[in-house]
Amino acid sequence: MLKLSRACALTFSLVCLLPAGLALADDEETERPDPKELDDDLLTVAQSLIERGQETGIAWDLLEGLVTEVGPRFAGTAGDRAAVSWALTELRELGFESIETEEVEVPRWVRGDIKVEITEPYPQDMVALALGGSPGTPDDGIQAPVVAAENVEALQDMDRSEVEGRIVFLSERMEATRDASGYAEVVPNRSAGPAVASEMGAVATVIRSVGSSDERVAHTGGTRFPDDVDPIPAAALPNPDADMLERQLDTGRTVKLDMHLTARELSPTTSANVIAEVPGRDPDAGVVLLGAHLDSWDITPGAHDDAAGVAIVTTAARLISELDRQPRRTLRVVLYANEEFGLSGAQTYAENRSDNLEEHFIALGADLGGDRVWRFDTVMNEDALATASAMFELIEPLGVEWGDNDGYGIPDFIPLREQGVPILDPVQDATRYFDIHHTINDTLDKVDPESLQQNVAIYAALAWLAANVEEDFRPTPVVADDADEEDEAEEEEEEEEENDEE
Amino acid sequence: MLKLSRACALTFSLVCLLPAGLALADDEETERPDPKELDDDLLTVAQSLIERGQETGIAWDLLEGLVTEVGPRFAGTAGDRAAVSWALTELRELGFESIETEEVEVPRWVRGDIKVEITEPYPQDMVALALGGSPGTPDDGIQAPVVAAENVEALQDMDRSEVEGRIVFLSERMEATRDASGYAEVVPNRSAGPAVASEMGAVATVIRSVGSSDERVAHTGGTRFPDDVDPIPAAALPNPDADMLERQLDTGRTVKLDMHLTARELSPTTSANVIAEVPGRDPDAGVVLLGAHLDSWDITPGAHDDAAGVAIVTTAARLISELDRQPRRTLRVVLYANEEFGLSGAQTYAENRSDNLEEHFIALGADLGGDRVWRFDTVMNEDALATASAMFELIEPLGVEWGDNDGYGIPDFIPLREQGVPILDPVQDATRYFDIHHTINDTLDKVDPESLQQNVAIYAALAWLAANVEEDFRPTPVVADDADEEDEAEEEEEEEEENDEE
Repeated sequence: MLKLSRACALTFSLVCLLPAGLALADDEETERPDPKELDDDLLTVAQSLIERGQETGIAWDLLEGLVTEVGPRFAGTAGDRAAVSWALTELRELGFESIETEEVEVPRWVRGDIKVEITEPYPQDMVALALGGSPGTPDDGIQAPVVAAENVEALQDMDRSEVEGRIVFLSERMEATRDASGYAEVVPNRSAGPAVASEMGAVATVIRSVGSSDERVAHTGGTRFPDDVDPIPAAALPNPDADMLERQLDTGRTVKLDMHLTARELSPTTSANVIAEVPGRDPDAGVVLLGAHLDSWDITPGAHDDAAGVAIVTTAARLISELDRQPRRTLRVVLYANEEFGLSGAQTYAENRSDNLEEHFIALGADLGGDRVWRFDTVMNEDALATASAMFELIEPLGVEWGDNDGYGIPDFIPLREQGVPILDPVQDATRYFDIHHTINDTLDKVDPESLQQNVAIYAALAWLAANVEEDFRPTPVVADDADEEDEAEEEEEEEEENDEE
Repeated sequence: MLKLSRACALTFSLVCLLPAGLALADDEETERPDPKELDDDLLTVAQSLIERGQETGIAWDLLEGLVTEVGPRFAGTAGDRAAVSWALTELRELGFESIETEEVEVPRWVRGDIKVEITEPYPQDMVALALGGSPGTPDDGIQAPVVAAENVEALQDMDRSEVEGRIVFLSERMEATRDASGYAEVVPNRSAGPAVASEMGAVATVIRSVGSSDERVAHTGGTRFPDDVDPIPAAALPNPDADMLERQLDTGRTVKLDMHLTARELSPTTSANVIAEVPGRDPDAGVVLLGAHLDSWDITPGAHDDAAGVAIVTTAARLISELDRQPRRTLRVVLYANEEFGLSGAQTYAENRSDNLEEHFIALGADLGGDRVWRFDTVMNEDALATASAMFELIEPLGVEWGDNDGYGIPDFIPLREQGVPILDPVQDATRYFDIHHTINDTLDKVDPESLQQNVAIYAALAWLAANVEEDFRPTPVVADDADEEDEAEEEEEEEEENDEE
């Protein structure tokens, strides 16, 4: 049987992705080292950026423009092309240099229409949303009884005979937390659940949305089937619909679903990373990368995910370009293509620079929405934390806590983080984020203008300091492979259990 | 030109309906008279009902049963028939007597499918929901530029040439208030707006939802076209979609919509009021009516609207039937058919008893959701308010304020109220109600079990006292025709203005 942790480690690498800022390991703050003394001039300018960030309207205008003039912009769609074109126009108007697109091959998945009904014992229409990557059902749908399991682990503990020929329902509820850990706990149900169910003979999967909203609005997101697993239709139910299904199951009677879904995959097409720079004085001093993703899921204007990130990093760079002095290092804004459905832009970006990833002095990304930054994590050499500590002193008054050096950055930084690129990681408050994220409700009104400004202030100050400090943030700690760790832990546990039994 | 207030008074009587508990006039509390002394035994039993009400699970079980086993139950649908059947079974199991159905002719409107897109200047799909009673569009849809007006009054002030051939967008936002007055202010946009737009030559209407939710979930409800007005397609947009439309209009460029809607009206069919009694000792002492409606809009399980009401009034009567003594008057539970789309059940009920409406000693209804009762209004002879004041003393500790004698009851009581039937009117807190009401989100999880119990306690105690007190609540004050009053006020105002001009 496929073990989830191994699956994540070996074949599911993409589906085990966690959102930006999400720490799987313990979230304890680590002791903050004494700050290194930074140049007064640098600090004065950084302070002015914090003030300017908190009053600028540039980020809001960018955010409003992207959601209003483009809206949904899923990889390979007309909206995706419109977003690239919008970004080029805006970057030009903001006075960036070296604006370019980098061609990216992207998969194309089409959601189609969905209809899910409970047909027995009490007929009810359900609200449902296909998971990204789900195949469609046959034309006449799938009619089958439901078998429930709380989550993937519980499913794996079941007997194949209980699952075969049935529609698996994974019922686990996600809890909203500031640090997004509630999402991390439940997201394997979405990413790996359908594949595990398929391996056990299920004909389809429905999951309780990996989202904290109590509205009848379902939460999409990618799922993935390894090459040797037959893809089966997979959809998310909003919390109230999952409750309804549970109540019908609680009667003890057979619950049957009728599921129709016309999702399908088309041939890949091309999209583009959009890249622009604020040139530094010293071409040999490396690049400070500011990253966010331009795409969104197909169903949503993606105001928080990730128009806010686009607005934050672009504005941070713009504020620095407005200064009366040039940063030492070049700031490079990268608006990645297709983060949502496979990190295509991030992979292409890293592949095209594989012989020179060291040029990245450090990276800052924004992909956890536009609510206030509350924590400052890092990924850098321990010796450099004294410099990070000095940076932190500037942003602390904006309500930020010192975090740890086990930061994450954004999903688009995974290929860079694996290759040792250091990361500054301001972490947004995710308490509300998973009410909104990957749903139709990710609209402009959900973003608070002042929170967006707080983000801009922090990113601008950090980017400015990163572009000028004397420090070597390398080598970074070895990236822990959480899945491997889990495996090892599990194996140890199993061994212990065996010992106990002996 | 059609004047809105006159339209409401003359031809739109149904569409001007306000939800239960909604006072159009001033909401000031009136001075509470000294309470009349009631029989100690009566009060002791009433107090025991308050305690029993706050611990019973009967109401929750009824609520859960209706939304789970039946779900949506719009007039004339299979769900409607299932609801009648469910109610008969439950009333029988609860031990009610004289359980009967009363045949009611109901209209049948079918929502069909809807697709609304902004096609210019920035193409975006909209979430939209047809208003009840809307006709469909032609098969190839309606494509037209949008003209915005804040509300019906502002629309009426426009020149016909500005409206003709366009899609009217009524943009007014509703404010959530505890007393539902925010709904009352905006609801004419839904009930009368499309007809007014049609009279001015518009080809369709979209309105900002008459709801306070910031989710992309639209709020339905009835609209009505007088016989001499051509019906035009009418739909509601969720608040975020209305915001999007406003932002595109704010660019100053022409905004065009493409609207497809397959709504249609079928021939009338039959449904039923479900009526059950707890018999009183004295057949000549009249009946205490406990009312709620069994139907819901087609898109929603209607947990608050009005499964909660059904659960509250049924349980209140049930608790009284469990007592070791019989009430003097008969309690009659009436679960009305088709409140939502034209008050069919209420009209049939009143028509069938037109020669004996005096048998209704007093009426209590529940149709403003299951949140806590916060106010106690009445409709009765002023002299009887001392008795109401004594009733109030019992429920005041549950967080209830003394209201006024300009109560409303529930929409299903309109035909009774017009004929002088007195009303006891516990008013639920409506702060959250219009986030949920008439949307897909009106689900079980939105009802708080303790609030439901507070309702049961209050309704049971009031019904018990009403069924036993020595009092004559008649004659009730003359029902003010708000629209007529408004007309008169307007006419006076106009006269004054004319005088000013002279």
